[in-house]
Amino acid sequence: MGKLTTDMDALIARLYPICRSITGDGVRQTLQILREHIPIEVREVPTGTRVFDWTVPREWNIRDAWIKNRAGKRLVDFRELNLHVVSYSVPIYRRMQLAELRDHLFTVKGHPEWIPYRTSYYEENWGFCLSERQLGQLSDEQEYDLCIDSSLTNGHLSYGEYLLEGEKADEMLISCHICHPSLANDNLSGIALAVELARRLAESPRRYSYRFLFVPGSIGAITWLAQNEAILARIRHGLVLTCVGDAGNITYKRSRRGNADIDRAFAHVLQHSGDPHQVIDFSPYGYDERQYCSPGFNLPIGCMMRSVHGTFPEYHTSADNLEFVRSEALSDSLAKSLTVIDVIEHNRVYLNNNPKCEPQLGKRGLYKGLTAGASKREREMALLWVLNLSDGSQSLLDIAERANLPFGLIKAAADALSATDLLCEMEEGRQRDHPNSNQLPVTR
Amino acid sequence: MGKLTTDMDALIARLYPICRSITGDGVRQTLQILREHIPIEVREVPTGTRVFDWTVPREWNIRDAWIKNRAGKRLVDFRELNLHVVSYSVPIYRRMQLAELRDHLFTVKGHPEWIPYRTSYYEENWGFCLSERQLGQLSDEQEYDLCIDSSLTNGHLSYGEYLLEGEKADEMLISCHICHPSLANDNLSGIALAVELARRLAESPRRYSYRFLFVPGSIGAITWLAQNEAILARIRHGLVLTCVGDAGNITYKRSRRGNADIDRAFAHVLQHSGDPHQVIDFSPYGYDERQYCSPGFNLPIGCMMRSVHGTFPEYHTSADNLEFVRSEALSDSLAKSLTVIDVIEHNRVYLNNNPKCEPQLGKRGLYKGLTAGASKREREMALLWVLNLSDGSQSLLDIAERANLPFGLIKAAADALSATDLLCEMEEGRQRDHPNSNQLPVTR
Amino acid sequence: MGKLTTDMDALIARLYPICRSITGDGVRQTLQILREHIPIEVREVPTGTRVFDWTVPREWNIRDAWIKNRAGKRLVDFRELNLHVVSYSVPIYRRMQLAELRDHLFTVKGHPEWIPYRTSYYEENWGFCLSERQLGQLSDEQEYDLCIDSSLTNGHLSYGEYLLEGEKADEMLISCHICHPSLANDNLSGIALAVELARRLAESPRRYSYRFLFVPGSIGAITWLAQNEAILARIRHGLVLTCVGDAGNITYKRSRRGNADIDRAFAHVLQHSGDPHQVIDFSPYGYDERQYCSPGFNLPIGCMMRSVHGTFPEYHTSADNLEFVRSEALSDSLAKSLTVIDVIEHNRVYLNNNPKCEPQLGKRGLYKGLTAGASKREREMALLWVLNLSDGSQSLLDIAERANLPFGLIKAAADALSATDLLCEMEEGRQRDHPNSNQLPVTR
Repeated sequence: MGKLTTDMDALIARLYPICRSITGDGVRQTLQILREHIPIEVREVPTGTRVFDWTVPREWNIRDAWIKNRAGKRLVDFRELNLHVVSYSVPIYRRMQLAELRDHLFTVKGHPEWIPYRTSYYEENWGFCLSERQLGQLSDEQEYDLCIDSSLTNGHLSYGEYLLEGEKADEMLISCHICHPSLANDNLSGIALAVELARRLAESPRRYSYRFLFVPGSIGAITWLAQNEAILARIRHGLVLTCVGDAGNITYKRSRRGNADIDRAFAHVLQHSGDPHQVIDFSPYGYDERQYCSPGFNLPIGCMMRSVHGTFPEYHTSADNLEFVRSEALSDSLAKSLTVIDVIEHNRVYLNNNPKCEPQLGKRGLYKGLTAGASKREREMALLWVLNLSDGSQSLLDIAERANLPFGLIKAAADALSATDLLCEMEEGRQRDHPNSNQLPVTR
Repeated sequence: MGKLTTDMDALIARLYPICRSITGDGVRQTLQILREHIPIEVREVPTGTRVFDWTVPREWNIRDAWIKNRAGKRLVDFRELNLHVVSYSVPIYRRMQLAELRDHLFTVKGHPEWIPYRTSYYEENWGFCLSERQLGQLSDEQEYDLCIDSSLTNGHLSYGEYLLEGEKADEMLISCHICHPSLANDNLSGIALAVELARRLAESPRRYSYRFLFVPGSIGAITWLAQNEAILARIRHGLVLTCVGDAGNITYKRSRRGNADIDRAFAHVLQHSGDPHQVIDFSPYGYDERQYCSPGFNLPIGCMMRSVHGTFPEYHTSADNLEFVRSEALSDSLAKSLTVIDVIEHNRVYLNNNPKCEPQLGKRGLYKGLTAGASKREREMALLWVLNLSDGSQSLLDIAERANLPFGLIKAAADALSATDLLCEMEEGRQRDHPNSNQLPVTR
Repeated sequence: MGKLTTDMDALIARLYPICRSITGDGVRQTLQILREHIPIEVREVPTGTRVFDWTVPREWNIRDAWIKNRAGKRLVDFRELNLHVVSYSVPIYRRMQLAELRDHLFTVKGHPEWIPYRTSYYEENWGFCLSERQLGQLSDEQEYDLCIDSSLTNGHLSYGEYLLEGEKADEMLISCHICHPSLANDNLSGIALAVELARRLAESPRRYSYRFLFVPGSIGAITWLAQNEAILARIRHGLVLTCVGDAGNITYKRSRRGNADIDRAFAHVLQHSGDPHQVIDFSPYGYDERQYCSPGFNLPIGCMMRSVHGTFPEYHTSADNLEFVRSEALSDSLAKSLTVIDVIEHNRVYLNNNPKCEPQLGKRGLYKGLTAGASKREREMALLWVLNLSDGSQSLLDIAERANLPFGLIKAAADALSATDLLCEMEEGRQRDHPNSNQLPVTR
C-alpha cells in the first residue's frame, strides 16, 4: 500500500495551497489537476441557473487580501494562507479603526495560533480570519488599511464527473466536496481517496458502473441532482467521502434507508475488520448525503468518515493541515472502502442445485485446498453455509451475516461451489423473496 | 401550577369523607360535587340490568355501624372513618363473643394504627375493619354489641359521563374509578386529575373529542361498555387514571396493543421529561384497562399511575389519606398528562412540498427566531428532520422518535415550516403506508 | 424417576460393548436389543442404492484385529475395546516396522491413557487407535505383526423406525444416530432417551404421531429422507438427540427456521426450568439436523444436547465411557424433553367466548381450586391471560411467552376455562392470523 498512499499524500499536498470555494478558478484548477489522474469531465453551470429551491450563485474569485498597519506592513496576508479571508467576501479597500474592523474579524478561541475557516455564501459580507495571537497584536488606538481584491460576477459553478462504466448500467455513486480551501482532511482527503478508488476500479472488470462526483458542497450536489434526475433510478449504492485522512477510527453513517446494501456491507466490513469503528444512524445534517437522502430521492447513499465533522477541534481551522492527515489513515480508508466495494460487487444470489441433504463435498475435491487450522474449519463452514442458505432468496451478504463469517470467505466458498455442479448464480429478477424481508427495517 | 394544584387538593379534601361504594348515595353525592366543576351527566342503571357476563347489583347504602362494649361505648365507629365497615356488608344487629366475631374482623399486619379497606360485593357477608391496636383492646372474655345499619335494595348503579366535543368525532377516553370510600390516592387523585384535565381541555379548541368517565371500578366500566358499544369505534386513544397523587415516580402501563399512539406518546413524553419513570407492559390485571383492553374491544387505552397498586404498603388502608397525596405529585401528573394529550392532539402527518434536496431555509427566515446555544442547534435539527421525514407516511411522533428530539420541538418546526410554502398537512385517509409499518409490534 | 433412569442406564450398559459402524452386524444387533423395548421395524437398504448425492456403501463387518509383537503378545487388541480399529478399515494381515506402521496409528495428545475414535468411511484405508502410553511401548527397532480381520462387501445399510400413531397424521420426528461403537454419551445416551420417550409416549393418548428413527449418522438420515420424501410434509416438529447423558447443562440448537414451534417450546421450557442452559442458533454443522434442515427440506427440527460435540475433551475418545454418562443427567434430559413434548402436544389455540369485558370467574367456581400464596396469584393471572389473549390468533405458547408464565400454568388455566362456557378450542385451519406474524423471524 505504500505506493498508493504516497500518491494520495502527494495529491493532497499539491492541492492544499489552492484557494477553492463553491465557485471560481480554484475549483477549475483543482479539477484540472485531478484530470492528470482520471479522465474527469468538467461541467460548467451558469450563474442564475435554477436548481430546485436554489439558484447557482455568482462566481467568486480572489487575487489578494491583507490588513496592513500604517507602516504598510502586512499583518494578515491572504498570500500566506488563503483561510485568512472569509470565503465569498465582497471586495473592499478601506482604512478603519480596529473598533470598526472587529465585527469582521474571526478567531479560534482557546487555540492562539489557529486560524478559523469561515464563509458567507448567501449573505453579502466580508471578513478576515486570523489567530488570537495576531488579533492581540492589533491596537485599538490604531487605524489599519485593509484590502480584499475579490470579484463576484456572473460566471459558472464548476464540478467534475467521471463515469467508469461496468457490465451493468446500475451505478454506485461516489461523491466528495471540493469547495474547501487549504483544509487537508476536509476534504482533500476525500478527493484523494475518490481519485484513488477510481484508478483502482478502472484496473479490473466491474459489475456496477461507478460515477465519481467532485462537487462543491450542497449547491454542487443540488445542481448535479437537478440536472440528472433521469439517471437517479440507476443509483443502487453510494458513498459520500469526507474527512477520511485523520488518525481517528472509521465512522460510517447509514443512509436514510438504514438497511441499504451499502449500509449492511459497510457495517459488515467494519465488524470483521477487528478495528475499532463506529456505525451511526442517518441524520439530516452533515455533508451531501443530506441532499442525496432528501425524501424526494431517498438514495441508498451513506457517508464514510474517520473523525466526525464538528467533533474534533481542528475541524474548520488551519490546524486541519497536511500534518493532520496521516498516510496510514488514508491507506486504511482506501483498504476498507475497496473491501466494501468488493462486497457490493460480489453480493449475488445463488441457488443450491442439490438442496436435499448435503452433497458429497469430498468427491468433488472441495475439501482439497482447505489447509489445516482454524482457517480450514472456517472455510469448511463457509461451504456448508453457502449450500444451506442458497435457496434463491438470500444473497452472499445475507449468508455472511447469518454465518458471522467474513464476506470474503463466503464469496470464496460460493466461487468454489460454482465451479462444480452444486451451485449456480440466480439471474437477477428471478430471485425469491427473502423470508425475513418483512423483518428488515426499511427506514432505520 | 400552584393554583391548579390547590384546586385538585381542595376537591380531594372535599370528597374524602364521603362513603362511596360501587353503588349508592355516596357515589351520587360525589358526582354532584364534580358537577360543580364540569357538566357531568349522571347516568342511573337499574339493579338487575344485564351487562355482558354481569348483572348490575343491588344498591348498597349505609347510615351507621359500630362495635360497642357492654358499657355502650363505641370501640369501632363508622362515623369516625367509613373504612371501618366492609363495603357491601349486609345489615346486622347482634351481640357476640369476640371469638365468634373474629372471622368478621380485618386488620393490617405490621402497621398497628392502620385500618384496611375491604369489600364483599358478590358474596353476601359483613365485617368490620379496625387497627391492630383496636383489636388488641378487645377481650376474648367479653361480649360486644355490633350494628351495621346498611341496606341492599333494588336501586341503581350511578356513574358520570362528560363528552367534551372537538373538531372530530374521534375520541380520547379518560376513565377513573369512583367507588372507593376514604382513600385519597386510590382514587380521589384520579378523579381530581380527570376533572382538572376536563377543565383545561375545555379552555381551547380541540382536534379530538374527549369523553370523561367517572365509573365504579369493573362493574361501572363494564356497564358503560355494554351500553355504548356503538361508539367504541370512535375511541382512538385513552387513559385510565389511578393513584396519580402519591410521591412515587410516574408509571405508564401500555395498552394491550402495546404500540398504540397513546403508548408511544406517553413513553416519549416520559423519556424526554428527564424524570425517573417506568413504562410497563400490559397485563390483564389492574384497573379498568382490564375491561377496555379485553379481547372483544382491544381499545388503545393505557393506564397512568404513580406508585403501582398493590406495591406500596399504604395501598387499600387508612394510610392512603390526605397526607399521602402530594400537591407537587398531582401537579406533575397534570403536567405530564397534558403534555401527552398535546402530543396526541398534534400528531399529524405532513408532506414536504420541496422533497428534492434541502430547501433554502435562510431566505424564508426560518433560521430567524433561532436563538443561540444548544437550543438553536436542536431547533435547526428539528427543521431538518421534519423536512427529511415528511414524506407523507410519518407522523410528527414518528419523526420525534427517530430524531430523538422532544415532540414539542418537532411540532414547533412543523408549525414554522407550515407557515411557509415548504410543508403542508396531509389529509387524513390520504397518508401513505409507513415504510416501517411491518416492523411495529402490534400486540406488544 | 429412579426406575426410569435405571432403565436408560441399563440399556446403555448393554449396548456399550457392541462394535457399531454405519453398516454391519453391530447395527443389526443394536436394533434387535431395542426391539425388546419398543416395536422398531428394521429396514435394510442394499449397497449401491442411490440416495440423493450419495450411494449406500458396502457393508463393513469385523471379527478381530490386533498388533502383536514377535513374541505373539497382543499389544493392541480389538477384543479389549472396539475403538482400537479405525472404523471401515479394509482387511490387512502384515508384518511391519514401526516406522511404516506409524501413519496408521492414532492417539489422543495430552491424555496418555485415552484411545481415540476414528473412521474412514469414504476413503479406503486402515488403522489402529491406541493410547499414547501404548504407543510409547512400541519400539522403532522392532517389527510387529498386525491383523484386521474385516470385510467390506455388498450388503445392506440397516436402520430402525418406529411410528407411534396419534390422533393426527401430523408427526413429530425424533432421530438419533446409532453408528458409533463403544462411546456412551455419543450416542448411546441419545438412543436410550429415544427408547424411553417412545415407551412413555405410548402409555397415553397423543395428539401427534411420533416417528422414531435409529439411523447411522449422515448416510442413514440421507437414506431415510430419500426414501420418505412423500411423508415429509407431515413432519411438524422434530428433535435430533445426541450426547444427552453427560454432566453438562442442556444445550438446544434451533432449527434452520429459528422460530419453529419446537424452537420456541424448547427455549420456553429451558427458561422456566430455572436450570442453567444454552440455546444456540442453527448452523449447518453438527448431527443429522444438517440433513433435515437442508434447504430442500427445511424441516422444523432442532437438536437437543447437553455438552456440545467437539467442545469437551472426552468427545470421540475412550473417555466417553459408561462413567461419563450420569444417571441424573439422563433423567433430567428425559424430564425436559417430555416437558417440551407436552408443550407441543397441548399448544392449541382457543377462543374466548365472552370476549367483551372480563367474565365473572367467581360464579363459575374458577377461583376455587386456587390455593393461597404466590401460586394462587399466578394461577389467577394465568386465567386472566388466557381469557385476554384467546382471540383466535394466539396459541397457548404465545400466551405463555407474553405472560412470562410456565406453559403448564397456562395450559391448566385453559383446561379449567374450557370446562366452563368461557373458552373453546379453535378448529385447526380456522385460526386467525397472529397479529405479530410479520414480526416473527422466519429463518433465524
